[in-house]
Amino acid sequence: MTAAPTHVVAAGAGMLADAVEAQAVPVTRIDWRPPMAGTEDDLATVAADPRRRAANERALAAVLGVSATLVDVAPASEVLGLERGQFLHAGPPVEWARAAGPLRGALMGGAAFEGLVTEPEDAVALFEDGGSVSLEPCHHRSTVGPMAGVVTPSMWMFVLEDPATGRRTHCSLNEGLGKVLRYGAYGPDVLERLRWMSAVLGPLLRTAVRASEPVDVTGILTQMLQMGDEAHNRNRAGTLMLLRDLAPAMAASGADTDDIAASLRFIGANDHFFLNLGMPACKLALDAARDIEGSTMVVAMARNGTDFGIQVSGTGDEWFTGPAQVAEGLFLGDYGPDDANPDIGDSAITETAGIGGFAMATAPAIVRLVGGTVPDALATTRRMHEITLGANPRWSVPILDFQGTPSGIDVTRVCRTGILPQINTGMAGRRAGVGQVGAGLVTPPAEIFPAALAGLAARVPR
Amino acid sequence: MTAAPTHVVAAGAGMLADAVEAQAVPVTRIDWRPPMAGTEDDLATVAADPRRRAANERALAAVLGVSATLVDVAPASEVLGLERGQFLHAGPPVEWARAAGPLRGALMGGAAFEGLVTEPEDAVALFEDGGSVSLEPCHHRSTVGPMAGVVTPSMWMFVLEDPATGRRTHCSLNEGLGKVLRYGAYGPDVLERLRWMSAVLGPLLRTAVRASEPVDVTGILTQMLQMGDEAHNRNRAGTLMLLRDLAPAMAASGADTDDIAASLRFIGANDHFFLNLGMPACKLALDAARDIEGSTMVVAMARNGTDFGIQVSGTGDEWFTGPAQVAEGLFLGDYGPDDANPDIGDSAITETAGIGGFAMATAPAIVRLVGGTVPDALATTRRMHEITLGANPRWSVPILDFQGTPSGIDVTRVCRTGILPQINTGMAGRRAGVGQVGAGLVTPPAEIFPAALAGLAARVPR
Repeated sequence: MTAAPTHVVAAGAGMLADAVEAQAVPVTRIDWRPPMAGTEDDLATVAADPRRRAANERALAAVLGVSATLVDVAPASEVLGLERGQFLHAGPPVEWARAAGPLRGALMGGAAFEGLVTEPEDAVALFEDGGSVSLEPCHHRSTVGPMAGVVTPSMWMFVLEDPATGRRTHCSLNEGLGKVLRYGAYGPDVLERLRWMSAVLGPLLRTAVRASEPVDVTGILTQMLQMGDEAHNRNRAGTLMLLRDLAPAMAASGADTDDIAASLRFIGANDHFFLNLGMPACKLALDAARDIEGSTMVVAMARNGTDFGIQVSGTGDEWFTGPAQVAEGLFLGDYGPDDANPDIGDSAITETAGIGGFAMATAPAIVRLVGGTVPDALATTRRMHEITLGANPRWSVPILDFQGTPSGIDVTRVCRTGILPQINTGMAGRRAGVGQVGAGLVTPPAEIFPAALAGLAARVPR
Repeated sequence: MTAAPTHVVAAGAGMLADAVEAQAVPVTRIDWRPPMAGTEDDLATVAADPRRRAANERALAAVLGVSATLVDVAPASEVLGLERGQFLHAGPPVEWARAAGPLRGALMGGAAFEGLVTEPEDAVALFEDGGSVSLEPCHHRSTVGPMAGVVTPSMWMFVLEDPATGRRTHCSLNEGLGKVLRYGAYGPDVLERLRWMSAVLGPLLRTAVRASEPVDVTGILTQMLQMGDEAHNRNRAGTLMLLRDLAPAMAASGADTDDIAASLRFIGANDHFFLNLGMPACKLALDAARDIEGSTMVVAMARNGTDFGIQVSGTGDEWFTGPAQVAEGLFLGDYGPDDANPDIGDSAITETAGIGGFAMATAPAIVRLVGGTVPDALATTRRMHEITLGANPRWSVPILDFQGTPSGIDVTRVCRTGILPQINTGMAGRRAGVGQVGAGLVTPPAEIFPAALAGLAARVPR
């Protein structure tokens, strides 16, 4: 046996440092990287901004202070005022001409679902003309949408509320995996499922939600992170807890018992059902930190399949965008990298709030879905602490000795370290109509962070 | 920065070794301990038994080959042939005179529940006299029972079956935590709950189970271990998956909708509901390895609150017993170590099968319930691999890079290393009527393993 070391200097992913610390040896961690090229002046300007520290403290505290509860389920026409011909989509603004295949597919399916056209293919002319239809980001309507994120007036929405302020956010009901609208599929089975969701599932959930205590979505997220979910690509425990909370009121709803059983079966068979509650819960929290002058905290990351955009607290509603990247990961069936569309969806709101890819340490089994190794998953969560403002005490990671998830992405830390936010994601087929082709790991395009930094620097009072 | 080591020799809990291995440095693990005193001769005799290797391979393969499915729910009188005045209890055989407080409390409550007496206290005379009542271990009737494990004819039982052989095991329905019969409480609320379970919950579950596909209990255990449950003192994900599987048929059962809603609420509010399915699943697997001459594998560990007993494959139905120990752990409210009864219950069947305390690495959050630290939990699972015959590929531990749970406790390895099986457990109040007082960590009394080894040695052909 060798003598125990009295002090260790560790560089790298941190596993050695962890083990040594667990054995009560003091550790100095070293992880230095050069800043992103060309950011030195803006970093200096923003660093000298006297408002910055307090603004970021306020921003992080605002995010961590929000509790999201599920208070209603209702059609988008009712709760968003969405009108015939209006379409919401994921990510920053984009027009039809630049829209990616899966977004086009979802819009075409949405047009058929709304009866604007009989066949989804007929909708191409409608969108090319543009006279009777309009596109708008979900984020501009207090909404988030996974993947293509298409919302139409007849779709039913979860309504989440922060009880302290009454603020609300929204998200559609999750359809399941594979050939589904949000992945760009629009076949007859996709539309039939959407019709059943609007005719049966939505109304039943409304009855159950209105008859139950408001479901504590933030609290379920807390539990999920102790149950192997990272709440972006694993939502199994969250879905089961939602089912637990709503099943009694569903059973007592007075609805047709076959419809109740079918709805319970539909939710239970879709491990991702809870994603569409976790996402608006994250948006509800992050929206509390918008528009704080001097704050360098990211309040949204979103992709439309063409562009990846971020919004930052201190720069208002401006989107900083760059080309969405293709994820690296694992593919379904015979699909390969050439079949995959670049990164798409508002679901990176989970990483923005500190879960998903940021909480991969809570979900080591996720590596079987998105690729990588278990040590990678642990290292990723640690690395994200280097670009975030703090840890969320409500969302703790048991395997990292109950450390909170890394929360509040700081544009200055990203630029200073060159470490990009880690997102794990589903991959949509590049061509409209295909559906899901895989899942993997992806980062934003690096250049949007220096751009956001420049935006922040320009607003620093001289 | 120091140069990377080219080879590391590691002793101890293994965290350092793991970290080094994760960084691709070859590691030699050293963990040598002296054999238990006085076991040298028997170890030599058993080691020389030419049947041993094949017998243990057969025993482990038999355990790993069993799938447990939930096929029915029915009263004990019906499925166990239990008659008025007959009581099953946890652990090895024990008579009333030596029975611990919580077992007495549960027997008293059980007698009142069956209408043998009006007040539970009146049952003391009944059991002291013994003429009209009898006690028998659950294990002798293809049954397991958590804590006191008392089963009476009117209680409803889960019926599990191995589809390959038709073999069956049984367990009562879980009552929840706190003041409940299995922890020795017998107040009016305890008896009222038991009556509701027999009148409403049991019949509804029977209808639902008979109308559903058989629930794959072994498969749920596989999933639980990726969802933060170790399946002894954390059963939250398992309970939720059971609810998911049965809720549709419960909703469509035609029963009174208030009863359905109340039953869904009862199961959903009791994170331990699945324990009473995991335990008989473990027994079903382990029973497949009974009575293999030459096998040194433990097939049951069970405690009645007075004695801790084990049964070993190669020694038939013989119990090797010693005094049950008091767990070390965390206490509820104002309770302390003096209030705790020694270890009780058949639930150590989970550890015998390789989960519970053996799978603590899957459930780092369990340390908040039973005490200890997260590194302890990881180290415990690794340590149990030193006394087991193999790893269960069906039950893998993501955080240990998907290694299987340590399965098949080997009496010779326990004696050779002195490492005792680690059990995590609820703690019952020492006095009848109190209920649960805490949860913690405990081991069997060491001397039962040398005793079992001697029994094995005596059967080795000379």
